[in-house]
Amino acid sequence: MIVVMEQNATEDQIQAVAAKVESFGLKSTIINGTERTVIAAIGEKRGSFKESIESFPGVSALTPISAPYKMASREVRTEPSTIQVGSFTAGGGHVGYVGGPCSVESEEQLISSARAVKAAGGTGLRGGAFKPRTSPYSFQGMKEEGLKLLAQAREETGLAVFTEVMATEDVDLVCRYADVLQVGARNMQNYRLLEAVGKSGKPVLLKRGASATMDEFLLAAEYILNEGNDQVMLCERGIRTFESHTRFTLPLASIPYLHRRTHLPVIIDPSHGTGHTYMVHDLAVAAVAAGADGLIIEMHPDPPNAQSDGYQSQTFEQFAETMTRCQKVQRALAE
Amino acid sequence: MIVVMEQNATEDQIQAVAAKVESFGLKSTIINGTERTVIAAIGEKRGSFKESIESFPGVSALTPISAPYKMASREVRTEPSTIQVGSFTAGGGHVGYVGGPCSVESEEQLISSARAVKAAGGTGLRGGAFKPRTSPYSFQGMKEEGLKLLAQAREETGLAVFTEVMATEDVDLVCRYADVLQVGARNMQNYRLLEAVGKSGKPVLLKRGASATMDEFLLAAEYILNEGNDQVMLCERGIRTFESHTRFTLPLASIPYLHRRTHLPVIIDPSHGTGHTYMVHDLAVAAVAAGADGLIIEMHPDPPNAQSDGYQSQTFEQFAETMTRCQKVQRALAE
Amino acid sequence: MIVVMEQNATEDQIQAVAAKVESFGLKSTIINGTERTVIAAIGEKRGSFKESIESFPGVSALTPISAPYKMASREVRTEPSTIQVGSFTAGGGHVGYVGGPCSVESEEQLISSARAVKAAGGTGLRGGAFKPRTSPYSFQGMKEEGLKLLAQAREETGLAVFTEVMATEDVDLVCRYADVLQVGARNMQNYRLLEAVGKSGKPVLLKRGASATMDEFLLAAEYILNEGNDQVMLCERGIRTFESHTRFTLPLASIPYLHRRTHLPVIIDPSHGTGHTYMVHDLAVAAVAAGADGLIIEMHPDPPNAQSDGYQSQTFEQFAETMTRCQKVQRALAE
Amino acid sequence: MIVVMEQNATEDQIQAVAAKVESFGLKSTIINGTERTVIAAIGEKRGSFKESIESFPGVSALTPISAPYKMASREVRTEPSTIQVGSFTAGGGHVGYVGGPCSVESEEQLISSARAVKAAGGTGLRGGAFKPRTSPYSFQGMKEEGLKLLAQAREETGLAVFTEVMATEDVDLVCRYADVLQVGARNMQNYRLLEAVGKSGKPVLLKRGASATMDEFLLAAEYILNEGNDQVMLCERGIRTFESHTRFTLPLASIPYLHRRTHLPVIIDPSHGTGHTYMVHDLAVAAVAAGADGLIIEMHPDPPNAQSDGYQSQTFEQFAETMTRCQKVQRALAE
Repeated sequence: MIVVMEQNATEDQIQAVAAKVESFGLKSTIINGTERTVIAAIGEKRGSFKESIESFPGVSALTPISAPYKMASREVRTEPSTIQVGSFTAGGGHVGYVGGPCSVESEEQLISSARAVKAAGGTGLRGGAFKPRTSPYSFQGMKEEGLKLLAQAREETGLAVFTEVMATEDVDLVCRYADVLQVGARNMQNYRLLEAVGKSGKPVLLKRGASATMDEFLLAAEYILNEGNDQVMLCERGIRTFESHTRFTLPLASIPYLHRRTHLPVIIDPSHGTGHTYMVHDLAVAAVAAGADGLIIEMHPDPPNAQSDGYQSQTFEQFAETMTRCQKVQRALAE
Repeated sequence: MIVVMEQNATEDQIQAVAAKVESFGLKSTIINGTERTVIAAIGEKRGSFKESIESFPGVSALTPISAPYKMASREVRTEPSTIQVGSFTAGGGHVGYVGGPCSVESEEQLISSARAVKAAGGTGLRGGAFKPRTSPYSFQGMKEEGLKLLAQAREETGLAVFTEVMATEDVDLVCRYADVLQVGARNMQNYRLLEAVGKSGKPVLLKRGASATMDEFLLAAEYILNEGNDQVMLCERGIRTFESHTRFTLPLASIPYLHRRTHLPVIIDPSHGTGHTYMVHDLAVAAVAAGADGLIIEMHPDPPNAQSDGYQSQTFEQFAETMTRCQKVQRALAE
Repeated sequence: MIVVMEQNATEDQIQAVAAKVESFGLKSTIINGTERTVIAAIGEKRGSFKESIESFPGVSALTPISAPYKMASREVRTEPSTIQVGSFTAGGGHVGYVGGPCSVESEEQLISSARAVKAAGGTGLRGGAFKPRTSPYSFQGMKEEGLKLLAQAREETGLAVFTEVMATEDVDLVCRYADVLQVGARNMQNYRLLEAVGKSGKPVLLKRGASATMDEFLLAAEYILNEGNDQVMLCERGIRTFESHTRFTLPLASIPYLHRRTHLPVIIDPSHGTGHTYMVHDLAVAAVAAGADGLIIEMHPDPPNAQSDGYQSQTFEQFAETMTRCQKVQRALAE
Repeated sequence: MIVVMEQNATEDQIQAVAAKVESFGLKSTIINGTERTVIAAIGEKRGSFKESIESFPGVSALTPISAPYKMASREVRTEPSTIQVGSFTAGGGHVGYVGGPCSVESEEQLISSARAVKAAGGTGLRGGAFKPRTSPYSFQGMKEEGLKLLAQAREETGLAVFTEVMATEDVDLVCRYADVLQVGARNMQNYRLLEAVGKSGKPVLLKRGASATMDEFLLAAEYILNEGNDQVMLCERGIRTFESHTRFTLPLASIPYLHRRTHLPVIIDPSHGTGHTYMVHDLAVAAVAAGADGLIIEMHPDPPNAQSDGYQSQTFEQFAETMTRCQKVQRALAE
């Protein structure tokens, strides 16, 4: 950690900070610049080190020189992780393709979707049984009945089932039916839920919060890893910016950034990441070109009559076309 | 709802949308513009109306003409709500002042803080017993022991106790000690938790998520109101923007905006809203000048040695000075 | 234009707005909803129509139902435009590849770069002779001497020369040497400059301002088109968001969005769009996969010793590798 | 400057960076941490130092330890600057109040506005004669005729005239009539214009660009100061964020921040900063409470019939009320 002092910091303030640094068992080196002084604090930081130093009189800013996450870090595990569930594989050169409806609505809707995903070459099935909804007046999902349909769809197609869990009290139930537990963007910092999915031992798809920084995102993953569960996939689904012609802004630079910082696979969600069906295809293909380890795409047999997210859902035909072109790009770049 | 069609929408598409609108029991009026057609959908919208229409071929955009929230709306209740707990009152011309440490750390720390808040003219005491922390490696709070200290501080000072509840399973416990349940920014869309604090019947301080729109914020309040609990205060604590010299950007325009849209009191948090002790005073006074119904401010007997948030905590002297000047402004504007 | 009235708007206010709408020669239709009234204003809007209506008492919001730009619009010209300058072509299925250093620094540096661009299959050469710099203390460019070197590089390689013009008084000078005038992000709303490059008749590469909305971007293009110059390329180079691990956030969804709204070609700048050399490759390939009509990439013979932008410049080898993979993707998707 | 190396940087890379640092005439100190190495570079940085080091292999990040601006800095001039033009004074405890219409439209409109500003206690008159407009089809201002009316209004009322200059070629003309040259947000990084207003010797009101960082804002001021013109006022007028219920987000934390970093006066524009008349009052009073050195507010005799910005303009009565309450707060805080 580099502690940058204010230009007018007094010698007493500088010494007080240095003493505090050493009280944490670290080594402090004082460097007097032409304009101000900085103090390098070398060693393993504990608990409240940063917050404590940050509040000292005369301190202007702190610059971390190592990442706050550990187990998620590429520095701890240099090889990329691969997550494999049934026929679905993501990471280490494998691209996992997940498709399916926003919400599970009926047997007919779900099974036909699963078949279409499978036929197009997908290996995972998404479908929400518990739906977090912005308004208390919106459709909240089919709950356990939806989970049963997901399990039935797996039976018929062999696809790995991805579904969201919204609350700690539902984790056991969802685990009975799902292959991969999805933590939604709104719950990315619901720490109790992160601990619970960590303890479950199931693979987790962790969605990035709409205004989470990368450090916050990786620290959320760290909560899961810290429970002994190393089966975590990171899902970039767009951030909130001033842009209003898309629902969120999908930053594909997250792919090279995360690949450099962490060994965990990176999955892209071009449906939430754009919010418009007509944009999903181009961003899906782009994500594969940028090196994504997987895609999760909303599709529906009849988008205009979907219970949720119809405006960003592909038809079966659109989904198949997207899959074809993603695979072309994947092959071209593998040559 | 106004449905704006694409410029090249076909007559068939227009008729299909109009028919769908009427299938929801609404009246549709087709207006042919020089460049494109719009369809007005008049009547009470149900469940998935918006999402359904949005996915129809030929539809360019939907413009809501009424707010998605109901009970929070000023249109339902025209007079401002007042929340009163012990000596604390916010709304309807009353400004409630809440001070206290980020985390409860010890009896000594908490009781001295409570006395300083009381002496400065505050009416509420804040203090975290359950702490949501970005990193799993940070101090997570004193839990029930902290709650007990909060109750003891109330006994001694008469201040109303505000404390955060992070999970549904803790609601009963926290209710035994607290006067006001605080829902943190990271949990603003944790819908199960919103329902649980709604059912508790206790007053709730709902913090705005760092990237929540106003509609999302008011719909989160709606979840609580919808459980029959109308004791909700809205807390603006800053949004995430490109600014990096403050931790968050504190938009005081939220005060006039919310006062126009909702009857619920608006509380400002200048500590999280700036992230730097030296800015807290100016923004606190400004918030009162802009018509805030209350303030919640972090203070600590010894900020450099605080377990959390020391860099944005005032000393007792700074807090007292801020209180004095806020009250001066309050009186000047009441004349 | 749809005028949405406040819920408590009076009949007099509604009539006043309707009268004002008709005073502009438009047809007004009043639609009484269950909660509020909306007024449709049909016909060609002139000058201050929107601003005038927006300020009337009782008006809540205005919803435009047609785009504010005309000549840039796909509704005016349905076929995509192609810009062709020498061997460089962008649009209508052609992808134009532009490479070169941020700043022209010397004959040796520029000529070697131009040869490397040409060898890798590029068709345009970038290089700044007039440099807009955030600090008055930074290198400001070689000015006319730099332009001469650019012209010499064109002579040797046949590449089309792209260079920035910063001020109206330089337009004539730059036109004597350049093939394409670049308007930088910081000048996107420098209207006098837009008019001047419009009058020049030269092809223009217009960069998006870091916080420009799409409407603002297309209206800036409209300033150029309005001078009778239809050779405009739109360059997405990233927007300013809360993300700090990239210099800007590069939203590739701009590609499908702009392709739907406008006939003008869309060029992506992955160098400024990420700000880190190691990310440029992945985003360049992704942009081609998403359907970009061109790329503009910073490269340099010796990035660590570049006068500007070395941290986001590719080496010749990296550039060649990026070109190879972009072309692989282009071919795979053309099959 | 602190140079943070990548964790896996080689000894050769570290030595190469240290050598480069010293080649700039600086002193380098290598600090070996437990996880990585940092290099402190001490001394006066020149030109491309930062960019050069940033591009070296093995460099992870650079942390500046001094501000990039010099003359604007509080470290160079510790006392706050006061700008005084006729009866208008801002800074050093004085609050300057500027009111007036967005655009000069007619003698009647402007003179009546000036009288209303004066009667309410204002000391400056704003009015645009050259209008930068997002659309080429909007009203572009009365140009020189407008300037003449502004000079006439000054004659009648004694108010200091503030008006925008959009292009270097207009600087001389505008100087003949105006007291204070305003540089608009869209031109904040039009460096030629900054140099030209710097050379003019007139006081300048520099508006912050909608996505400018504070360093960029202060470096733009530095361009003006660097021409020997120290009469610069900084105007915060709101930044672009995801908020859509206000036109921009007005961060009043800019006031304490700028007061700490720079000696230049800080003026707040609550009209553009909110974009809605009904919010202007609350934010104006809040700005004074937060310590602003001045306000610039749009007002108009008949907002619904204004040529521009009517939706954010106050009536004369509203303006007078705002002035009264701002002065009450100013007095209360001066006690």
